[in-house]
Amino acid sequence: MQLGMIGLGRMGGNIVRRLLRDGHTAVVFDQNPEAVAALVAEGATGAASLEDFVEKLDAPRAAWVMLPAGAITEGTVAKLGDLMAAGDVIIDGGNSFYKDDIRRAADLAPKGLHYVDVGTSGGVWGLERGYCMMIGGDTETVTRLDPIFKTLAPGVGTIPKTPGREGRDARAEAGYIHAGPSGAGHFVKMVHNGIEYGLMQAYAEGFDILKHANSPDLPEGQRFDLNIGDIAEVWRRGSVVSSWLLDLTAGALAGDENLDDFSGFVADSGEGRWTLNAAIEESVPANVLSAALYARFRSREDASYADKLLSAMRKGFGGHQEPK
Amino acid sequence: MQLGMIGLGRMGGNIVRRLLRDGHTAVVFDQNPEAVAALVAEGATGAASLEDFVEKLDAPRAAWVMLPAGAITEGTVAKLGDLMAAGDVIIDGGNSFYKDDIRRAADLAPKGLHYVDVGTSGGVWGLERGYCMMIGGDTETVTRLDPIFKTLAPGVGTIPKTPGREGRDARAEAGYIHAGPSGAGHFVKMVHNGIEYGLMQAYAEGFDILKHANSPDLPEGQRFDLNIGDIAEVWRRGSVVSSWLLDLTAGALAGDENLDDFSGFVADSGEGRWTLNAAIEESVPANVLSAALYARFRSREDASYADKLLSAMRKGFGGHQEPK
Amino acid sequence: MQLGMIGLGRMGGNIVRRLLRDGHTAVVFDQNPEAVAALVAEGATGAASLEDFVEKLDAPRAAWVMLPAGAITEGTVAKLGDLMAAGDVIIDGGNSFYKDDIRRAADLAPKGLHYVDVGTSGGVWGLERGYCMMIGGDTETVTRLDPIFKTLAPGVGTIPKTPGREGRDARAEAGYIHAGPSGAGHFVKMVHNGIEYGLMQAYAEGFDILKHANSPDLPEGQRFDLNIGDIAEVWRRGSVVSSWLLDLTAGALAGDENLDDFSGFVADSGEGRWTLNAAIEESVPANVLSAALYARFRSREDASYADKLLSAMRKGFGGHQEPK
Amino acid sequence: MQLGMIGLGRMGGNIVRRLLRDGHTAVVFDQNPEAVAALVAEGATGAASLEDFVEKLDAPRAAWVMLPAGAITEGTVAKLGDLMAAGDVIIDGGNSFYKDDIRRAADLAPKGLHYVDVGTSGGVWGLERGYCMMIGGDTETVTRLDPIFKTLAPGVGTIPKTPGREGRDARAEAGYIHAGPSGAGHFVKMVHNGIEYGLMQAYAEGFDILKHANSPDLPEGQRFDLNIGDIAEVWRRGSVVSSWLLDLTAGALAGDENLDDFSGFVADSGEGRWTLNAAIEESVPANVLSAALYARFRSREDASYADKLLSAMRKGFGGHQEPK
Repeated sequence: MQLGMIGLGRMGGNIVRRLLRDGHTAVVFDQNPEAVAALVAEGATGAASLEDFVEKLDAPRAAWVMLPAGAITEGTVAKLGDLMAAGDVIIDGGNSFYKDDIRRAADLAPKGLHYVDVGTSGGVWGLERGYCMMIGGDTETVTRLDPIFKTLAPGVGTIPKTPGREGRDARAEAGYIHAGPSGAGHFVKMVHNGIEYGLMQAYAEGFDILKHANSPDLPEGQRFDLNIGDIAEVWRRGSVVSSWLLDLTAGALAGDENLDDFSGFVADSGEGRWTLNAAIEESVPANVLSAALYARFRSREDASYADKLLSAMRKGFGGHQEPK
Repeated sequence: MQLGMIGLGRMGGNIVRRLLRDGHTAVVFDQNPEAVAALVAEGATGAASLEDFVEKLDAPRAAWVMLPAGAITEGTVAKLGDLMAAGDVIIDGGNSFYKDDIRRAADLAPKGLHYVDVGTSGGVWGLERGYCMMIGGDTETVTRLDPIFKTLAPGVGTIPKTPGREGRDARAEAGYIHAGPSGAGHFVKMVHNGIEYGLMQAYAEGFDILKHANSPDLPEGQRFDLNIGDIAEVWRRGSVVSSWLLDLTAGALAGDENLDDFSGFVADSGEGRWTLNAAIEESVPANVLSAALYARFRSREDASYADKLLSAMRKGFGGHQEPK
Repeated sequence: MQLGMIGLGRMGGNIVRRLLRDGHTAVVFDQNPEAVAALVAEGATGAASLEDFVEKLDAPRAAWVMLPAGAITEGTVAKLGDLMAAGDVIIDGGNSFYKDDIRRAADLAPKGLHYVDVGTSGGVWGLERGYCMMIGGDTETVTRLDPIFKTLAPGVGTIPKTPGREGRDARAEAGYIHAGPSGAGHFVKMVHNGIEYGLMQAYAEGFDILKHANSPDLPEGQRFDLNIGDIAEVWRRGSVVSSWLLDLTAGALAGDENLDDFSGFVADSGEGRWTLNAAIEESVPANVLSAALYARFRSREDASYADKLLSAMRKGFGGHQEPK
Repeated sequence: MQLGMIGLGRMGGNIVRRLLRDGHTAVVFDQNPEAVAALVAEGATGAASLEDFVEKLDAPRAAWVMLPAGAITEGTVAKLGDLMAAGDVIIDGGNSFYKDDIRRAADLAPKGLHYVDVGTSGGVWGLERGYCMMIGGDTETVTRLDPIFKTLAPGVGTIPKTPGREGRDARAEAGYIHAGPSGAGHFVKMVHNGIEYGLMQAYAEGFDILKHANSPDLPEGQRFDLNIGDIAEVWRRGSVVSSWLLDLTAGALAGDENLDDFSGFVADSGEGRWTLNAAIEESVPANVLSAALYARFRSREDASYADKLLSAMRKGFGGHQEPK
């Protein structure tokens, strides 16, 4: 079927490519005409403006927005809402906050416009590996878009079937789900990212402990010089901690075990934060997910005010003068 | 080659089975004669006592101890130390504390006995999936035992090769490593389990947040009834959080999404605790691994003294009387 | 000077009493006529309705709202906004969210109404001990209300002066500050409560460790039967951990060291949650404040879904069946 | 009564001074003859060696060791054990690990020597404020030393009595307790320090949030420029978070609100670590106390290996290149 795509960055471009390869058609638009031209060369129909984009789509239109979450997505959805017609669907495949989805769906409904939010995981590997998708929206619209999702999803592949799932929704095994009404897709994707942070931090702390196994803080005769890269590799087979993140870790450590190319500065995106906000709103304890986010905050500070205050108190009660 | 096995529980028995199936021979001993008989029926040579066990092994002997860590393993290693001869090797495949390995190796060395510690991951799946092994000991002895390790390990299998590992120790790709001198094997295994706790808790918190997405604490119109089992399944393909633990989670949730068969009481073994002790000794921050362990401690308490003290303070300053 | 008070619960009633005792006058209103009558008997002027309340106040009016945060305060402020006139001031002394203050102040400004938020600490002890107040609003209005704040605040008292504060705002030493524009008062009070949670949890964990010093988990010969009440008492003098919360703890433990009157269920109010939301919004790590809040969440659950999921995974990879 | 003091640093010297001022006598020894001379000038009897020290003490001797915990204290106690006689008592007033106390007491008992461990809080303020002491040892010896403890302790002072403590051990109100057998004193002091870390971190995080209230990460119109020093001061009176640590904080912030004299590097001593080890051994959750210790570990690292590993994974799955 036909899909319109707005935003032809790494994610949006590759989603179109994966669709074209499977026989779908696409109308594409981006602020950058070169990005449009590149996909036109691969078989897509290019648009010169949002108006042109909407015009070139067949009704009922399906327009996928793949832009940075926040003001840019918000503005684009609003403009599409003005241009499109009853029966059309706007799909937000970016990383929007789920409460924004709920609001947008409610705003568009009176015009007869449908709104579908798709939490999309897969990153730079999606073109090859497929995209894991968590979808929110009304059932009729999500069902109408199924050919798109089916193509984008990884499919069952060689991963063994989960015993006991006979008779349950087969889409989950193919790598996409209809999670619920508008907002549910991004909610599930948000928690996915929250978990991702926690998993990453668990590995990071463990490898940090391994790396420091030869610390002079340890008693003599109880230190080890460990081969961190080999440890990451060995855990990929038969261990309890095997995972895709571990595969990537093993790859990074195969290159440079000391990771000297990295500064130690770690960014975070909104989902990790929103996951904690959700946990707090639900009264669910989330020590691990919180600690994972805070470690990233801390990674970006040189000398924190909190730490200075500790030193000030220590000086106050004990006369301790911290070294500089 | 020949291996002696002491302790024929789930792990020890299956290790022997995997060896026999690959053409090795085994002398086996267990306090429980039925366990011995069962393996004799599968081709092993049975022993009636530790003395008989040592006698039936060909020198230089290789005796694998697969018993509960602590006093039982300690006593057995000591007794083997008395019975065995220079050139022999004692292998501790259990979950011993790595500082005990270091001490034992030093104690046995003057007699010419070798001591090898093998951190063994794989649980009930090891017979079929192979065992991921992290090995500590002197190089000569570990090399001598290589045929055993090779058979027990999962092997390269269908898991893709890590790019960039060309020319590095191939044993890691087969699922076992020689981590360092005595103690290094259990040290690495210990951190493996510490990470395992952290990963598990990350998933647990995330699914808890998903499960409570329809909490009455949330604003109306912002709640979702999510299908937890389908979410676990969909993340198995193409997502960033795919892992073996997630595969198991999807399996458990396919059976009963509410997990009503579980009481919420979660045990822990020594490795998680020792990992934190090591982090503290090394001055390495480990918020996630700590939180994961503490969550298990907390799971086993009904009403904690700490919580009661909070209520007592709240009553003190605010006159709050907590509900019972 | 004259103050109007809406909401004559524990806090509102005692604030009026402290004002009357110092020669101020008060117009009071509450949904419950008995609460009004009680204060009239102590010298206040009673009002029968919000309209009556506004009418009985002298212009420029000062109306203090001391009601539960959320819908009730919101509605009352809105109604007062309709009834009151340019130059009047609405004071919210409850526990409102600071972003609500910012919004309300902006909403009331076009009418010439002032809005002052007062974070008020002191609980049941305020009548006697005075109220610590953190005030947000425009300088002119806050200055106009100074006689009220001066009376309500604890005053310098017997607490030693902080060296080095010569020449700085003396109000802080008397127990109240003008923290900034509208919202600043509740923002500071919010963080006060966040810290309070952290302090309480630090004591709670420490006393829990002391309480379990005779745990059978500990090696024999390394256990202690400690007198928890005496420990709390001894730390009140000369130790680094002395505090008002410790005084309260010592009092609670003097009564019943086992705290058997408490169920272990611990409530939380919005401020602890909002403090974390602020930390997340500011990218400030807050592991301790988060852990303190999550401990309360956890205290209110019997068997958490997160814990059940851990058990399910443990069963999956190790065949472990947790005890019920 | 007479006390011998070994180690005349800040703590040991001031303890002797406080004793002399109250009419006790002291024999003093230090590696540094100038430190000895200084106290001789204030009325103490100086000793030139450990042997001389023991000789100058009247039997039954009481020798207080106030030296760095670890090897120095260990060696001194051992040497004293050789030099002293049945009925004498060795007091360790330093920060020893409580399991070392238990072992030393058992080692000295066959010779008829008593061993008393005194956890001593008070720091540089002890001379003036008195020392809060937590004492471990046999009852007869602790009772014999009571005049010493009574003088060193802060005494009841002006701090209000805790209601409900009538009839309980009055020593606690005077600032010292006999906590239990050898080791109990340092155990309680250890937990005191663990709590201290937690309290400090709670304040540190809270003030960090206040400090960042004008962060550009926050939405415009929702930022505050707060006067951190005034906030610390105002909380000293009437708030729930008033404490001695807050008094010290207010003092530090009165000097320089930005704390520019501090590097942000925060040391830790053994007690915080041992407190966590005890919590782990007892299966008591201690998220706050752990986070407080880990924050100090983290304060001493520039770019942690854990953080670099996060960046490496992020690059792996998302192609993210962290800024340097």
